[in-house]
Amino acid sequence: MAKKKIVLAYSGGLDTSVAIRWLADQGYDVVAVGLDVGEGKDLEFVKDKALQVGAVQSYTVDAKKEFAEEFVLPAMQAHTLYEQKYPLVSALSRPLISKKLVEIAEQTNADAVAHGCTGKGNDQVRFEVSIQALNPDLEVLAPVREWGWSRDEEIDYAKKNEIPIPIDLDNPYSVDQNLWGRSNECGALEDPWATPPTGAYELTAPLEETPDEPDMVEIEFQQGKPVALNGTSYELDDLILKLNELAGKHGVGRIDHVENRMVGIKSREVYECPGAMTLITAHKELEDLTLPKEVAHFKPTIEKKLSEVIYDGLWFSQIRDGLEAFLKETQQNVTGLVRVKLFKGHAIVEGRKSDLSLYNEKLATYSTDDEFNHQSAVGFINLWGLPTKVHSMVNKKGVNV
Amino acid sequence: MAKKKIVLAYSGGLDTSVAIRWLADQGYDVVAVGLDVGEGKDLEFVKDKALQVGAVQSYTVDAKKEFAEEFVLPAMQAHTLYEQKYPLVSALSRPLISKKLVEIAEQTNADAVAHGCTGKGNDQVRFEVSIQALNPDLEVLAPVREWGWSRDEEIDYAKKNEIPIPIDLDNPYSVDQNLWGRSNECGALEDPWATPPTGAYELTAPLEETPDEPDMVEIEFQQGKPVALNGTSYELDDLILKLNELAGKHGVGRIDHVENRMVGIKSREVYECPGAMTLITAHKELEDLTLPKEVAHFKPTIEKKLSEVIYDGLWFSQIRDGLEAFLKETQQNVTGLVRVKLFKGHAIVEGRKSDLSLYNEKLATYSTDDEFNHQSAVGFINLWGLPTKVHSMVNKKGVNV
Amino acid sequence: MAKKKIVLAYSGGLDTSVAIRWLADQGYDVVAVGLDVGEGKDLEFVKDKALQVGAVQSYTVDAKKEFAEEFVLPAMQAHTLYEQKYPLVSALSRPLISKKLVEIAEQTNADAVAHGCTGKGNDQVRFEVSIQALNPDLEVLAPVREWGWSRDEEIDYAKKNEIPIPIDLDNPYSVDQNLWGRSNECGALEDPWATPPTGAYELTAPLEETPDEPDMVEIEFQQGKPVALNGTSYELDDLILKLNELAGKHGVGRIDHVENRMVGIKSREVYECPGAMTLITAHKELEDLTLPKEVAHFKPTIEKKLSEVIYDGLWFSQIRDGLEAFLKETQQNVTGLVRVKLFKGHAIVEGRKSDLSLYNEKLATYSTDDEFNHQSAVGFINLWGLPTKVHSMVNKKGVNV
Amino acid sequence: MAKKKIVLAYSGGLDTSVAIRWLADQGYDVVAVGLDVGEGKDLEFVKDKALQVGAVQSYTVDAKKEFAEEFVLPAMQAHTLYEQKYPLVSALSRPLISKKLVEIAEQTNADAVAHGCTGKGNDQVRFEVSIQALNPDLEVLAPVREWGWSRDEEIDYAKKNEIPIPIDLDNPYSVDQNLWGRSNECGALEDPWATPPTGAYELTAPLEETPDEPDMVEIEFQQGKPVALNGTSYELDDLILKLNELAGKHGVGRIDHVENRMVGIKSREVYECPGAMTLITAHKELEDLTLPKEVAHFKPTIEKKLSEVIYDGLWFSQIRDGLEAFLKETQQNVTGLVRVKLFKGHAIVEGRKSDLSLYNEKLATYSTDDEFNHQSAVGFINLWGLPTKVHSMVNKKGVNV
Repeated sequence: MAKKKIVLAYSGGLDTSVAIRWLADQGYDVVAVGLDVGEGKDLEFVKDKALQVGAVQSYTVDAKKEFAEEFVLPAMQAHTLYEQKYPLVSALSRPLISKKLVEIAEQTNADAVAHGCTGKGNDQVRFEVSIQALNPDLEVLAPVREWGWSRDEEIDYAKKNEIPIPIDLDNPYSVDQNLWGRSNECGALEDPWATPPTGAYELTAPLEETPDEPDMVEIEFQQGKPVALNGTSYELDDLILKLNELAGKHGVGRIDHVENRMVGIKSREVYECPGAMTLITAHKELEDLTLPKEVAHFKPTIEKKLSEVIYDGLWFSQIRDGLEAFLKETQQNVTGLVRVKLFKGHAIVEGRKSDLSLYNEKLATYSTDDEFNHQSAVGFINLWGLPTKVHSMVNKKGVNV
Repeated sequence: MAKKKIVLAYSGGLDTSVAIRWLADQGYDVVAVGLDVGEGKDLEFVKDKALQVGAVQSYTVDAKKEFAEEFVLPAMQAHTLYEQKYPLVSALSRPLISKKLVEIAEQTNADAVAHGCTGKGNDQVRFEVSIQALNPDLEVLAPVREWGWSRDEEIDYAKKNEIPIPIDLDNPYSVDQNLWGRSNECGALEDPWATPPTGAYELTAPLEETPDEPDMVEIEFQQGKPVALNGTSYELDDLILKLNELAGKHGVGRIDHVENRMVGIKSREVYECPGAMTLITAHKELEDLTLPKEVAHFKPTIEKKLSEVIYDGLWFSQIRDGLEAFLKETQQNVTGLVRVKLFKGHAIVEGRKSDLSLYNEKLATYSTDDEFNHQSAVGFINLWGLPTKVHSMVNKKGVNV
Repeated sequence: MAKKKIVLAYSGGLDTSVAIRWLADQGYDVVAVGLDVGEGKDLEFVKDKALQVGAVQSYTVDAKKEFAEEFVLPAMQAHTLYEQKYPLVSALSRPLISKKLVEIAEQTNADAVAHGCTGKGNDQVRFEVSIQALNPDLEVLAPVREWGWSRDEEIDYAKKNEIPIPIDLDNPYSVDQNLWGRSNECGALEDPWATPPTGAYELTAPLEETPDEPDMVEIEFQQGKPVALNGTSYELDDLILKLNELAGKHGVGRIDHVENRMVGIKSREVYECPGAMTLITAHKELEDLTLPKEVAHFKPTIEKKLSEVIYDGLWFSQIRDGLEAFLKETQQNVTGLVRVKLFKGHAIVEGRKSDLSLYNEKLATYSTDDEFNHQSAVGFINLWGLPTKVHSMVNKKGVNV
Repeated sequence: MAKKKIVLAYSGGLDTSVAIRWLADQGYDVVAVGLDVGEGKDLEFVKDKALQVGAVQSYTVDAKKEFAEEFVLPAMQAHTLYEQKYPLVSALSRPLISKKLVEIAEQTNADAVAHGCTGKGNDQVRFEVSIQALNPDLEVLAPVREWGWSRDEEIDYAKKNEIPIPIDLDNPYSVDQNLWGRSNECGALEDPWATPPTGAYELTAPLEETPDEPDMVEIEFQQGKPVALNGTSYELDDLILKLNELAGKHGVGRIDHVENRMVGIKSREVYECPGAMTLITAHKELEDLTLPKEVAHFKPTIEKKLSEVIYDGLWFSQIRDGLEAFLKETQQNVTGLVRVKLFKGHAIVEGRKSDLSLYNEKLATYSTDDEFNHQSAVGFINLWGLPTKVHSMVNKKGVNV
């Protein structure tokens, strides 16, 4: 009988290296897949290591551009911040990684797909729901969740099986990173009264060490998409990486969040999202100029729902299609320039302009002369306040008579 | 026949001074009312000036405590930010001022009430709807909107009637201030591409001039209400004024907002809300620790609606009562301490703790052992992902068969 | 100097006939436009009468198909019921009529457009906002609102100007009708305690006179669009008219509604919407079978907003585009057959089926065997209930310690 | 060692009778609790049978009044209809039953609580989350879910243990009933294309057999609570039972629903809720008369959330407290009389009146004279339409230039 084949999301770290061997022990041919979604991974190293520890095949995918265009862009346009704080860093990459795993599983006629998550986090849900959505016939395994080993047991197993032990094994941080930012959980954060340790941060300078001179950036948007910085065009992934660097230098985008996980517990995590927070801020300001009031006031309902849908692992679902269709309609006029001052942890929008601005001096003047006569305001107030007035009259009557 | 009596909200400035005389010309006995809602007004000066320019009676009211307790507190607990930016500074004081005007109108048997707003802004709506809500039998006049004079015509009238002309008549800024912040419109802001002039700000230091050492503040909340700073108890109005000073020194709370007014146009305004933004930030963090997920995820819907209700002048309405009743239920467990670092324009929450925290290490450990076994997560994912899986199976079938 | 030209929405009734003459008196060349949106108007009669009473040109438009496809269909798919009751009969036709008026105004180089509404209703708002949205350069006039005559004054004017007086002048009802239903205001309805008079209804039989045998109708939907009745294909406008007849015979679709108008007052109106209510009911049932839970639970938020947007005259606005884009995504799988029993005022869905059903026996069985083992439910409940459990533990602790 | 004690929700049927014996086999002392929540159960019979099949103690509770006042009333005031259809019959009783179980567990020093649900439905979730919310120290068992027997295995076990086998064992229906209605699942319903069998219904007459004369009922509400029928006062539970009878005779309240369960599958159920649907309809109509527009337009958001919270088993949670606090504020003026015609499956509201009505002829007349002058409407439309007009002007400019 032919051996079963399984496609594993492979990071090159200890957990997934051990998983390759463990899955092989269970009788699988393991196909490893290493992806770069903007964290700057050495894909060649990852590819070789997978084979070395026991994979039968090893794929690598540079998914940065697809990640930027298909996943990050709508999230930026929707200002998706889970619980008004977390820009969905890992939540955005999980569906993309799932998609690549399924594609390779289908190409290689694999029977199953595996990920390296434990049983306490959100990512296991995101992987498994995404994979089922894309191909419900694929089995999904979660070796780390299944074996349930302690750290020591895992290291023992690694040593017995000649799997290289990383030199930074004592690193207390559990990090995930991509174009859109970097997340970090660690023991020191478990006390929400404790200040995050300086070592928890990597993409952003501490405020105390930021430059005393600001950098000014002019960000150009075309229909809601950032296309240029200070007049130079960039592809989206490069633009974000560039902004991560620029804004990170000024300490922009540190987030310290006690959040409600899908699995019913609160956890505390630290995020660094310099490019993400700069772009979201700038984009919102351009919308303030170009969206009609009705759209500006309803879009947050869509944004909040989309944030939760993405956080909750439902990227590949009809609800996301619907929310994005709404979003797309809103972006048609979000074209213009935003001037941002990067300074001391802030991305301060100092100016915004657009040929499609719904605010401009000429219109304002037009409005003064033509619309804002005494009578318009009086008439408006009469009818706007009428339900309140009637309510007041009736209740007075009700009380007194 | 007895003359009609009118109660006028009197600021001491040119517009309302001229209004006293203009109303007298229309045949009214004018009762002036000067209020302090935290802007630090010289009430004695205002009282005397009203009589000097023609009022028959002059009242003053120190409304700071009532403003803090009844108006600012629920807004802070609801994190009300109109269009996610503006903390409703003037929108909060208008209903309180209206209430005081109506009270004095009823005490003095007045026939009418007047305010000094023009026909282009939001405040005229807020005053008139509030007054109608509180006493629909009172007539409301808006002299400045009615006379429709240019600046020069107004000054001519003032000179003819011996009304003192302010020495800062060339001041380009139109400012409103109270405990909760300071708003500023001016000609220089009319181009949304222009950086706001430094003179537009008063409560907050420019980032470039903020101290190089942070201040740490521990804010204590009892059931959602801030009651102490660094261990010292304060009444709410004093606590806010203290924080305005402390956080203002560090440049916290500058807001530059292109907003959608009620009357159908976009305007740009600059706000300074050092205390407000510090308290809202700290309070949100304590809620992150103490609110159950379901409440944390629904409360923003209430917050957004309350922001719009207040902005739109509907303070005295049943909808606000309902929203505040929801809000009050959520605050019962928002008790604890938040440590805030005031530095370079930021109010950074570095730690938060509460006896009613829904996150703590002991519970986390409890959870690990008891709840987060392999099977709970697997079972959860199976059922959570089931609609997506079924949808995927059906649509595959639909496509292929 | 050339006379100004104005395009008037012309019904053939007294008000708009008088308006033609009145506008001519004001110096306009009047272009009359008569439209049929499904009320079964005699367009030739209307065309001739307009010329007879003084129009310089007279256009007629059969807009039934465009009305059905572009306006009624999305409203049906969104189950738009203003205040959960009113299917937006007139609110849907106003933007279409405005569009036709603007098209003809542009073709004829007219300077202005006019409608026959008074100052108390919603339709004046819908016309004027729609016209401004489509061509902000056109002036809009509302002669009936402007002249402000009593009924007697209007008749005097008509007699003097040889405008024919309708023979049913004593008709107490004020009716508007189109494909999607019939609305009726009248004096007898002004007391909300009074039973609507039998004469208020025309499209629907009284329950007491409906047949004692039901009619069964199988309605076929393709991607959310009704395409056939009992196996016979229909164009949408014909299908609706056919259902109005069938369901009207059984008394389906009477609605008696005390509603909140845009202009600040409550009014009571009576609607008859036999086809509309049958289609909305059937379509909802097919969605219950074919929409994933997440979509089914969020769509009502879109539906409610769309209802208000349409009621409030904002059809031609970006917010409607966005809401419809969401809607369109949801309709892709709403394909199938619904069996409706029309009987005694009810449109009872007795069966529904779809090749894309997310409920079917095979899947249910599959689910039983595969998913619904003991452990999945237990695991799900453990995590679902965890926030509640932790909250309970903490608060107990809080109370007792 | 002392035996462990468990409190079991006992219906008197086969499943929970077998559960008593099975729990005893596991070493528990079983305390049976029989409840009447309006289904008209013979509590004495249930009490005796529990002891007969092996319980060590047997309690009965008549919980009708508490159920009506504390659970049904807010649901009625919020018009809670899950997915716009299901009035939450069983979902409302589960938290009350859980509360009684926990009370008796605390009185009897029990260690655990048990319910008779299987692993596929919603009720297991509602019981377990409610019990954990009320006393997180109690263990919860679900014997039927745990043993996982087929029907035949269960009957074998019953026979071996001398547990009486019900005579209606072939009854294909699985029914739950209380004051607020009756739910029914059965095999025949599993095909959503099939018409529900007549035997599925018990509380409501088929339309074909309803009287040819209507009954008229005048329902009096005091602050949102129904207190009298046709002038006769009733306690709430009696009023609902009376209406179940009256409206049931006329066939009111049949609901056929394909619904999304919590556990990820769609199911089809048939409900009969004659009293519930009559009261919800009448109450909504009185609200249409007495709620201000802003409240009427926001309350559905609260209603929808409350429906989902109750359906999802979160009755005992802070989110429900908050939603009910909002709800309570809205009911203060919902006082008046509603005239309902019960006829041919309809509860038709023909009239409604209230001393606190926001609609009445006097006000309407007042409004006509005072408010609805030409200028108010014109001014209102100018400002209401201004954003649309500006958007149109800008986009035209954008396109042409």
